[in-house]
Formats: sequence, C-alpha cells, structure tokens
Amino acid sequence: MKRTSLAEDICPVARSIDAVGDWWSLLIVRDAFGGKCRFGEFQKSLGVAKNILTDRLKKLTAVGVLETIPVSDGSAYKQYSLTERGRGLFLVIAALGQWGQGGSSAEFKLVERKQGKPVRLELRTEEGRRLDLEQVQLGPLSSSNQ
Amino acid sequence: MKRTSLAEDICPVARSIDAVGDWWSLLIVRDAFGGKCRFGEFQKSLGVAKNILTDRLKKLTAVGVLETIPVSDGSAYKQYSLTERGRGLFLVIAALGQWGQGGSSAEFKLVERKQGKPVRLELRTEEGRRLDLEQVQLGPLSSSNQ
Repeated sequence: MKRTSLAEDICPVARSIDAVGDWWSLLIVRDAFGGKCRFGEFQKSLGVAKNILTDRLKKLTAVGVLETIPVSDGSAYKQYSLTERGRGLFLVIAALGQWGQGGSSAEFKLVERKQGKPVRLELRTEEGRRLDLEQVQLGPLSSSNQ
Repeated sequence: MKRTSLAEDICPVARSIDAVGDWWSLLIVRDAFGGKCRFGEFQKSLGVAKNILTDRLKKLTAVGVLETIPVSDGSAYKQYSLTERGRGLFLVIAALGQWGQGGSSAEFKLVERKQGKPVRLELRTEEGRRLDLEQVQLGPLSSSNQ
C-alpha cells in the first residue's frame, strides 16, 4: 500500500514518521544503538527478508539517519553507522522502550554511559521543574509555518 | 505483508512497536492527544481510507490504547478516548515531534497545561542530573526475562 508522503506535513510528528518510514526502520535504528552495523547482524537480529532490509537501509541512508562507512578489514562489505541526525532518534527509542516495559524496571534499561547508573526520560520545564504526563499538552501548531 | 508478531519479544521497544502497529496508528494517537475523538475527525485529519482507519481504531482499542465511550448526544456514533495506557504514549509522540522539528522551536510545542510554558523531554539521572544523548546508552536486556 502506497501512503501519501508526509514529508511536507506541517506537523513534525508526521514528518518524523515519514522519515523513519516504518517499524522495521525503527527496529534497525534500535539495533544500531545496540552496536550492530553489518547487514548480516541486522538480518539475524530482526529475522527480516533480505529485500526488505536492503530497502530500509537504503531509505534510512537517503534520509540521513544512517551512513555507510568502509569496513576496517578492507573488504567490499558496507558498515552502517548512525549519523548525528540518527542519534537524535535515541529519545524516540527510549520512549518506546519505557512505554513497552510497563512496570518491570529490570527489563529495559537506559543507563549513564560512564557509571552505568539508571537514566529516565522526563518532562521538564525550562527551569528544570519535573512534570507529570497529565500536566503537559501538545501546543497548537503555528499556522505561520505553513 | 504479514509481519512476524513482536508481541512476545523480549525487547520492550519491539513490543511497543507491535502494540501500536504502524504509523497510521501513531498518527491516530497523535490526533487523540490533540483532542480528536470521532471517526470523521480522524479521517479528515489523516486523509486515510475508511477501511484502514476502521481497522486501526479496532486494533488500538483491542490492545488497550483507545477505548470507546458513548457520545453525549445519545446517537449511535462512537467516540474514542485514550486509556491510561494510551496516554503513556505521550513521550513517544513528544520524542517524534522534538526530533522532527529539528532547529525550529516555534513549530512544535510541548507546553505546561496550566501556564502554557515550554516543556522539554530530557534524560535525567535518578538524582535529577541532566544528561546529553551521548552520555546515555541502552543497557543490556536481562536474559533472566527471556
């Protein structure tokens, strides 16, 4: 099914969805955060058909989420690495993980790289005040950006 | 294309992806946060085919993200409302919006409900220390949960 492109949508949520494309793409990004970088590693992790994986890696590279880098052993294989833009998806992956784990805190961990201490995704005001979900809403999209 | 179900996957990111299903579902959730609750409102906002919208609303209700509530005017029409579980997806929508907007801060706003002040999604330690993306990683999934 071909979907209308959301790339020019005024809403940045819709644009993000267009860029990342589909759930396979997001699972590829998750695996890239987990250190995977080769076609075979993604394929083994996801159990996805090769043609679909090829297509999604190509799309993620085209939109600037992944980039290909030469493999250190000089072979013809490509390695995939998250770009700076791609690394920005960390909060999306973290939010999906936090939501999916529900109550069990042992299962999904965001940790501080150096000390291994637990990290949480939180909503904060500019002054650093922590807010509950119920205290926050999506503001109206400014029509001047249309 | 039928995809392998990820509902029993050990990774909560994958389980979230299974529950929310596809991008249409996430756009429906976005619209629900924006106050939309009727079939016609979702359809007008998304420009999606009626059969697809029907299917996705049914799935989101089945997984406990949306619930149907009686319409106050007593008509036979259904209204859709986010459940508590569904409201938990706010951080996912917020993360997608924050990523999609890139540099332009005027376009996508998370605001405090009462005062309308800007809100940001941040990574913090348990003691409240703010961390950059580079300082955080996904911890290993505990194999005891398999």
